[in-house]
Amino acid sequence: MPEIGQIPDAMRDAVDAAKRRVAELHAELPRWGLVAWTAGNVSERVSGEGEHPDVLVIKPSGVSYDDLDPDAMVVCDLNGELIEGGRSPSSDTAAHAYVYRHMPDVHGVVHTHSTYATAWAARGEEIPCVLTMMGDEFGGPIPVGPFAVIGDDSIGQGIVETLRDHRSTAVLMQNHGPFTIGATGRAAVKTAVLLEEVAKTVHVTRQLGEPIPIPQEKIDSLYRRYQTVYGQR
Amino acid sequence: MPEIGQIPDAMRDAVDAAKRRVAELHAELPRWGLVAWTAGNVSERVSGEGEHPDVLVIKPSGVSYDDLDPDAMVVCDLNGELIEGGRSPSSDTAAHAYVYRHMPDVHGVVHTHSTYATAWAARGEEIPCVLTMMGDEFGGPIPVGPFAVIGDDSIGQGIVETLRDHRSTAVLMQNHGPFTIGATGRAAVKTAVLLEEVAKTVHVTRQLGEPIPIPQEKIDSLYRRYQTVYGQR
Amino acid sequence: MPEIGQIPDAMRDAVDAAKRRVAELHAELPRWGLVAWTAGNVSERVSGEGEHPDVLVIKPSGVSYDDLDPDAMVVCDLNGELIEGGRSPSSDTAAHAYVYRHMPDVHGVVHTHSTYATAWAARGEEIPCVLTMMGDEFGGPIPVGPFAVIGDDSIGQGIVETLRDHRSTAVLMQNHGPFTIGATGRAAVKTAVLLEEVAKTVHVTRQLGEPIPIPQEKIDSLYRRYQTVYGQR
Amino acid sequence: MPEIGQIPDAMRDAVDAAKRRVAELHAELPRWGLVAWTAGNVSERVSGEGEHPDVLVIKPSGVSYDDLDPDAMVVCDLNGELIEGGRSPSSDTAAHAYVYRHMPDVHGVVHTHSTYATAWAARGEEIPCVLTMMGDEFGGPIPVGPFAVIGDDSIGQGIVETLRDHRSTAVLMQNHGPFTIGATGRAAVKTAVLLEEVAKTVHVTRQLGEPIPIPQEKIDSLYRRYQTVYGQR
Repeated sequence: MPEIGQIPDAMRDAVDAAKRRVAELHAELPRWGLVAWTAGNVSERVSGEGEHPDVLVIKPSGVSYDDLDPDAMVVCDLNGELIEGGRSPSSDTAAHAYVYRHMPDVHGVVHTHSTYATAWAARGEEIPCVLTMMGDEFGGPIPVGPFAVIGDDSIGQGIVETLRDHRSTAVLMQNHGPFTIGATGRAAVKTAVLLEEVAKTVHVTRQLGEPIPIPQEKIDSLYRRYQTVYGQR
Repeated sequence: MPEIGQIPDAMRDAVDAAKRRVAELHAELPRWGLVAWTAGNVSERVSGEGEHPDVLVIKPSGVSYDDLDPDAMVVCDLNGELIEGGRSPSSDTAAHAYVYRHMPDVHGVVHTHSTYATAWAARGEEIPCVLTMMGDEFGGPIPVGPFAVIGDDSIGQGIVETLRDHRSTAVLMQNHGPFTIGATGRAAVKTAVLLEEVAKTVHVTRQLGEPIPIPQEKIDSLYRRYQTVYGQR
Repeated sequence: MPEIGQIPDAMRDAVDAAKRRVAELHAELPRWGLVAWTAGNVSERVSGEGEHPDVLVIKPSGVSYDDLDPDAMVVCDLNGELIEGGRSPSSDTAAHAYVYRHMPDVHGVVHTHSTYATAWAARGEEIPCVLTMMGDEFGGPIPVGPFAVIGDDSIGQGIVETLRDHRSTAVLMQNHGPFTIGATGRAAVKTAVLLEEVAKTVHVTRQLGEPIPIPQEKIDSLYRRYQTVYGQR
Repeated sequence: MPEIGQIPDAMRDAVDAAKRRVAELHAELPRWGLVAWTAGNVSERVSGEGEHPDVLVIKPSGVSYDDLDPDAMVVCDLNGELIEGGRSPSSDTAAHAYVYRHMPDVHGVVHTHSTYATAWAARGEEIPCVLTMMGDEFGGPIPVGPFAVIGDDSIGQGIVETLRDHRSTAVLMQNHGPFTIGATGRAAVKTAVLLEEVAKTVHVTRQLGEPIPIPQEKIDSLYRRYQTVYGQR
């Protein structure tokens, strides 16, 4: 196990920049109503330099969103062991670390218990793709991952196995809540925000009847277009 | 296609004033809970001077609501081609432009995916006029427009064909979300806010039973009165 | 009709104090989520001095909640005619004025279209008293008033006839929305806030089953106690 | 009954620190959407020194959340009688005091009428444990306490009898609302926030079907782990 303080010099700037971004991104979770009290977390991968392996930056466990400045963030290796930081890492760190170990393109992971996404998860029901915004962002339904409890790799495994061959960058872990992944921490946070929005909108839709399905080829075309064209180049 | 920077001198002040208003009006969308992340946009028409044609001012694509100052706004011609601005226009610009080309009295357009309005849209169901506030503002039910995907003029056509002979200044594009129009950008934003409010209130009403209908002649009288008397002269 | 500027000297301080209070109380409406855009209003009665009759202070029509400072408030006589102010009074002024003319103990009136209260109103269904907080505050169910449209005294009459012999200080005007009354403007605003809270809580209760009734004698005892004991003496 | 001002010198610092904490904790109630107007309260026990008995610090009755500074807080003995403070204590003080008298490990009590928790209470229905977050925090379902009205010890008794042999630190008092307890005021506030979150999530879950049950042994393991491992040591 690495000792505290072992961040290599070559990675110091990148780690400090990630701490600033991760601290800032945590503020987006209460802002968009995704978390109650301290129940949610954002992490970012920092790529290793030379012989040094990748690390991840995440929020400490059980700490108020008011107290999240960059220096409070903790750094762990990709087995979830603490490398730097005055507090214990989030109790979900093992799941984040597992995702980074097994999905090399993922550089950001977010976990929340956002209300509507968690409600679909508690019924073990995927969210059908009945909104153009879902076609754009997720390219199809939001899948459900297995029931798994904290304490070993089963949450991380469930996330990776569900998302590996799926367009969706969000998974609803059964009876638990959503995890989202992205090419950056910011992208994973954006996905968490849009996931809750579509989870709520489709819920509200179905409260008074059935949504009109969108044909698969339209979903495909929305998804392809959005992944190529949207946003600033 | 016009080159960047071709705003005629005679229109410069009007364009700059529109940029300030449009930037400010975007802040109303998160304030009233109409948008998640960057998913919504407001535009205004600026009338042409002399030989110069009308242009429109809109937000750039995929940019955070925190970063919207007047200088970030972009200017397009009424075919949706960029005239001025450092970033790509919103991916919904073609729909806004189509509306301005075909509805000369419209000077403001707003598009959101606000939750309750979008839920009605996902069921393809119009919102019945069962509130006096709906009689005042919309003069009847809120209609549903066709399913159409981004990429050509079909969204703009759907909006114009649905609203052209309708009292309502709001349309629910099927599986997509609402578009609202107005004599100003501010009026279109107001309509977007009130639309979501009535979409939610009628939804909540119907969750526990059926609303009492309002007789058509009462709706007519509310609408006529409100269009003539309300607000400051 | 009184000319603009006819506030008697003896009433000037009381009118100015009421303008400050009414401006401040309007800020409570968006704060507690009771209004969308400008759709809500608060008024206060100012008692006449000597030969001078009572007047009322209310917000002008169609003005943003950001622009509500004391000087923007308008003063009307109890027939709803403008006495002082640079803008037209709220279009609901006639209803407020009717209440003041017929209920001499009422010194504050509030009107909103708050979502859940309006949903009960749209079904024409009273809110049953199944919460101790409702027993405390309202002493029984929240009654429904008749359908009435703006333009004559029918809204005011509906409010007064419904509330005159009722413990409740709130009425749900059918297809329209709630009006609340109080011994002060602040009391009427408090009632509007608590009304929406109980309207939502009982709605949510009934979405998954039936509430347990509270026996009438318990409601009576809650109501008597609360009206005598609660708050600061 | 102690006279006003009888806080022993040996307890002065502890009482003043509790006043600061309790004032600050009240601000969490509107922040997390748990209260309308003034309808909620937080208290803390201050342990007695030497011969002096324990006291409790609580908010005064019917006072706005804007006016809650530490000096406004009142101190009562564990029979709920005022010891120090310029205003009457909260009308729920007797219930808080009863809990402190009968549950010596409890140092914080919170009462709200938060919407979703109160809706379960109005149906007299416990919240089933179908979320891992509920397993963590509550170790099982949230129980319902008896119907009881203010005025004697029956509310306090109902809380204590329901929670004494229960893992849950929250009780839904029938037709009334939730009370939560904790080892500190902050812990009881955290529980009130998470209670409303799970009350809402399970409500939303059941609106469209049935949640998947979590096996009892998994709940046990979540609860044991969370009570031992979570947060900072």
